[in-house]
Amino acid sequence: MEVLRINLSNSSIKQENPPKDWQNLGGRALISKIMVDEVNPTCNPLGEDNKLIIAPGILAGTTVSCVNRISIGSKSPLTGTIKESNAGGTTAYKLARLGIKSIVIEGKADDPKLLYISKDKIEIISAEEVWGMGVYDSAERLKEKFNDKIGLVIIGPAGERLYRSAGIANSDNNGSPSRYSGRGGLGAVMGAKNIKAVVIDDSNAEGIKMHDDDKFNDSKKTITDMILGNDAIKNSYTMYGTSNLVKLTNSIGALPTMNFSRGSFEGSENINGQKIHDLIVERGGEGNTSHGCMPGCLIRCSNVFPDEDGKTIVSPIEYETIGLLGPNLAIGNIDTVAKLNYLCNDLGIDTIETGGAIGVAMEAGVISFGDEEGAINILEEIKKDTYLGKIIASGASSTGKVLGITRVPTVKDQTMAAYDPRAIKGLGVTYATSTQGADHTAGQTIRANVDHRKPEGQVEASKGAQITNTLHDCLGTCFFLGGAIGGDLNLLAELYLSMTGVKLTLDELMEISKETLKRERKFNTDAGFGPADDRLPEFFYKEENPDTGTVFDVDNNEMDKIFDF
Amino acid sequence: MEVLRINLSNSSIKQENPPKDWQNLGGRALISKIMVDEVNPTCNPLGEDNKLIIAPGILAGTTVSCVNRISIGSKSPLTGTIKESNAGGTTAYKLARLGIKSIVIEGKADDPKLLYISKDKIEIISAEEVWGMGVYDSAERLKEKFNDKIGLVIIGPAGERLYRSAGIANSDNNGSPSRYSGRGGLGAVMGAKNIKAVVIDDSNAEGIKMHDDDKFNDSKKTITDMILGNDAIKNSYTMYGTSNLVKLTNSIGALPTMNFSRGSFEGSENINGQKIHDLIVERGGEGNTSHGCMPGCLIRCSNVFPDEDGKTIVSPIEYETIGLLGPNLAIGNIDTVAKLNYLCNDLGIDTIETGGAIGVAMEAGVISFGDEEGAINILEEIKKDTYLGKIIASGASSTGKVLGITRVPTVKDQTMAAYDPRAIKGLGVTYATSTQGADHTAGQTIRANVDHRKPEGQVEASKGAQITNTLHDCLGTCFFLGGAIGGDLNLLAELYLSMTGVKLTLDELMEISKETLKRERKFNTDAGFGPADDRLPEFFYKEENPDTGTVFDVDNNEMDKIFDF
Repeated sequence: MEVLRINLSNSSIKQENPPKDWQNLGGRALISKIMVDEVNPTCNPLGEDNKLIIAPGILAGTTVSCVNRISIGSKSPLTGTIKESNAGGTTAYKLARLGIKSIVIEGKADDPKLLYISKDKIEIISAEEVWGMGVYDSAERLKEKFNDKIGLVIIGPAGERLYRSAGIANSDNNGSPSRYSGRGGLGAVMGAKNIKAVVIDDSNAEGIKMHDDDKFNDSKKTITDMILGNDAIKNSYTMYGTSNLVKLTNSIGALPTMNFSRGSFEGSENINGQKIHDLIVERGGEGNTSHGCMPGCLIRCSNVFPDEDGKTIVSPIEYETIGLLGPNLAIGNIDTVAKLNYLCNDLGIDTIETGGAIGVAMEAGVISFGDEEGAINILEEIKKDTYLGKIIASGASSTGKVLGITRVPTVKDQTMAAYDPRAIKGLGVTYATSTQGADHTAGQTIRANVDHRKPEGQVEASKGAQITNTLHDCLGTCFFLGGAIGGDLNLLAELYLSMTGVKLTLDELMEISKETLKRERKFNTDAGFGPADDRLPEFFYKEENPDTGTVFDVDNNEMDKIFDF
Repeated sequence: MEVLRINLSNSSIKQENPPKDWQNLGGRALISKIMVDEVNPTCNPLGEDNKLIIAPGILAGTTVSCVNRISIGSKSPLTGTIKESNAGGTTAYKLARLGIKSIVIEGKADDPKLLYISKDKIEIISAEEVWGMGVYDSAERLKEKFNDKIGLVIIGPAGERLYRSAGIANSDNNGSPSRYSGRGGLGAVMGAKNIKAVVIDDSNAEGIKMHDDDKFNDSKKTITDMILGNDAIKNSYTMYGTSNLVKLTNSIGALPTMNFSRGSFEGSENINGQKIHDLIVERGGEGNTSHGCMPGCLIRCSNVFPDEDGKTIVSPIEYETIGLLGPNLAIGNIDTVAKLNYLCNDLGIDTIETGGAIGVAMEAGVISFGDEEGAINILEEIKKDTYLGKIIASGASSTGKVLGITRVPTVKDQTMAAYDPRAIKGLGVTYATSTQGADHTAGQTIRANVDHRKPEGQVEASKGAQITNTLHDCLGTCFFLGGAIGGDLNLLAELYLSMTGVKLTLDELMEISKETLKRERKFNTDAGFGPADDRLPEFFYKEENPDTGTVFDVDNNEMDKIFDF
């Protein structure tokens, strides 16, 4: 596997053999290694010295279920921390099949560029014809220009305009650029480098050369059987997708409602997984209740959400988006949420950050809570790049500063995901202490065996979740795979052994994860972050969540020791 | 002397005898003491837990020249650091004469209030009749309501709207609310507490009870004679005011021009001190070339700048304002600068921060550099509270984030004063390391005996300046007094002895200053600031100032040791 090093300032393209100590590092682990070794932590995230790194996990490149997530990393212009933003889709699969361990994009181009990568050719070419276009149209144009099997890593107008909420879209199994590395404003880093898209053509790629084909097939079969035999997965994620969570979080007072002023939403039954499932079935047409985002996925928690005529509104519609663009804005109309979701995707902005920012704007009275048309209009303002649009697209923290609002649900300037930290306190610990700013995927504790409303045990729960989630981000495996295989991560070590001949114990895997977290933590410390930054916004300590009667009260000293391992 | 402690959340008013260890602490020293002892460094600056502290220096209350500066302090909503913002005017004089050592404003009122303070009465009363009004009209209305001898500590619409650039105005000798504690957004803290103004009526106040009248008169006479005998002061500050600096900074490449892209300005001769002096003389009417901002001031660097008909445009017009709203915007018309200055004052926003933010907006193409009408229009947008207005008024850093500009001349989110740090590197060290964010008054090195363009010796120069400037902020003395009395600060110790009977050596005074800096530093460390925050924006290290051929290159390790004393 080779490392592609692209320097846009001098248009150089280098294909390097990675150093030996990168061998077992992929995804988030590799990003942390490169960032710590090569990038000045105090650099301007939108300047020439920052790097954008695209790295598949170490298991990528086969059709084993749930092993092809892509990690995209950099110093974040939203949080100022190191950032790894993780997505499904085909990017990791295609890169691994082309023998590419990582793409490291350095410097800054003078004018809009595409990076084209195929088996025979790697080149930097003009992106003029798609610059300024929305994500979906750009993707269509690029598929016409190249071929419709290409994979894309692509930004919308948001990234081009350096919006702090800009994400990076990855093509899904159907070639639709809908799998978002959404968090942390990485789209703006790509835009600052003047890269509209990385075009990946894996036609005739050699694919992964297996160390032991038989063992690989055995491993694959074991995993396949476990997933297909897991009724809990089938009856939740496969049937209802991630929006299955609406019912749960609403019932425990954790569903953020009206800018995190409460934890349940009247009308949540109109936006939950069951309702979405039934609507998709009823409307038919292009709708699909269970859709895989990555090659080989058997969980298929993704979906295609159609309008009344069966035409796709957006794909997928997921829990976090529903939470932030639905109840958080007091919007209970799933068609409106789907439309907002589509508009965000096409502009190339993070739905979570956008929902957070609009919630703050609603609190400021820009529009009222529940104003569906107003919310859609705000997305139009972003599209038109008006001042209001720019404010919202700069993220919830900036929006709060500009509009004079102090109830802003962010940590390190990044909006929380759709879980109230007073109702799921372990996740509150993750929001506060994660190396990534407020982020549920950095350490989800909703399934942890603790009383979510009590402060006790939350730091331990978060620590365990942070280490496990990080491991998935290094392997490139989907977090849901852990549940599907009963948490037996040895199966993944065996899969890796069959692919590479390298035997890693579970302890060694965990060590990779812990070292990744420590490297990230070091980057952040050197960038100026410390204990005072590892806190939730003041109002979570002072205002009770009326649905739980709790405030966030996990001990600071305990939180400050979470990375002592 | 007593401490007034006003808690707005429960409308309580307490008159306290200060603890013994506050005896020799005034101004910035006292603010740092109260903030460190009483305020959680991670609190939300616009929340109930922050405090707003008004504290005269320990020499306040007499008509000795240059001893009545007021310190206003808090945790800053702009920088997130501790903040002391210092101004002339009559506030310190009147408070000291009323026997008030400090006002500590806590909590938050439910609706707009005035705090009224006189010899016989202290009360919290409604401010409804002036809420929403500009600073000048509010002051007129309050003078009608009370009497025209009152002093005011007052905010404009900017503070009410929680703009991060909002300052606090203090009445000058003529009762005009024009002496600004402008920096750090303290007006927003006052606005968040729902306080429009502190009304100070010192009629029949007892004044300072002298420990030794004869000695006091001797001290006063010595200082008076020294100032009046100082031709350098007379021929610079008294004659031309602070704008005398334009000629100097322009000549050494330090005058920020076009968003700090160069250090000299074609047309600077139309906005320098000589030109302003001549214009004031020529236009006559209300104009005044030499005006004292504080009772008893003999330097009189302030001025009244009239229009062609002799009617006041603004008073005073000063160097920093000229630099940031003039050359930094490529505006060379002094009447336009004066008008912008007036509009800022009336809204209650810091002219430095506003100039910084408009410079960034010009770089973003919102209007062109040099567009005078456009700049005035932006002030109108702020007045109308439009989205563009809100963006600009949130300060230069926020403006950069929202508009996607990375060349933003701020440290800790506060705009630099009108000195390019590549041309006066000691001041660059002050900008970087000061406890107050980028601020020239925190440690001015322009007169230091170093080669300003070389990195060597700058940390020492800045350290000395920071300690001396802080001492002035504790005593309540004007920085210019130091020059006027030939740097002999023993004279100030003698003055203090004559007033109080307390003998402080110069070393003890310096110790007060150093302890103040250390307390401030501790507050900031606990608030989350560290070495990575003590840096200039990236472009100063990378882009040469074309007028000096230098970048900022003072050694980071050396800077990080500046507070090791």
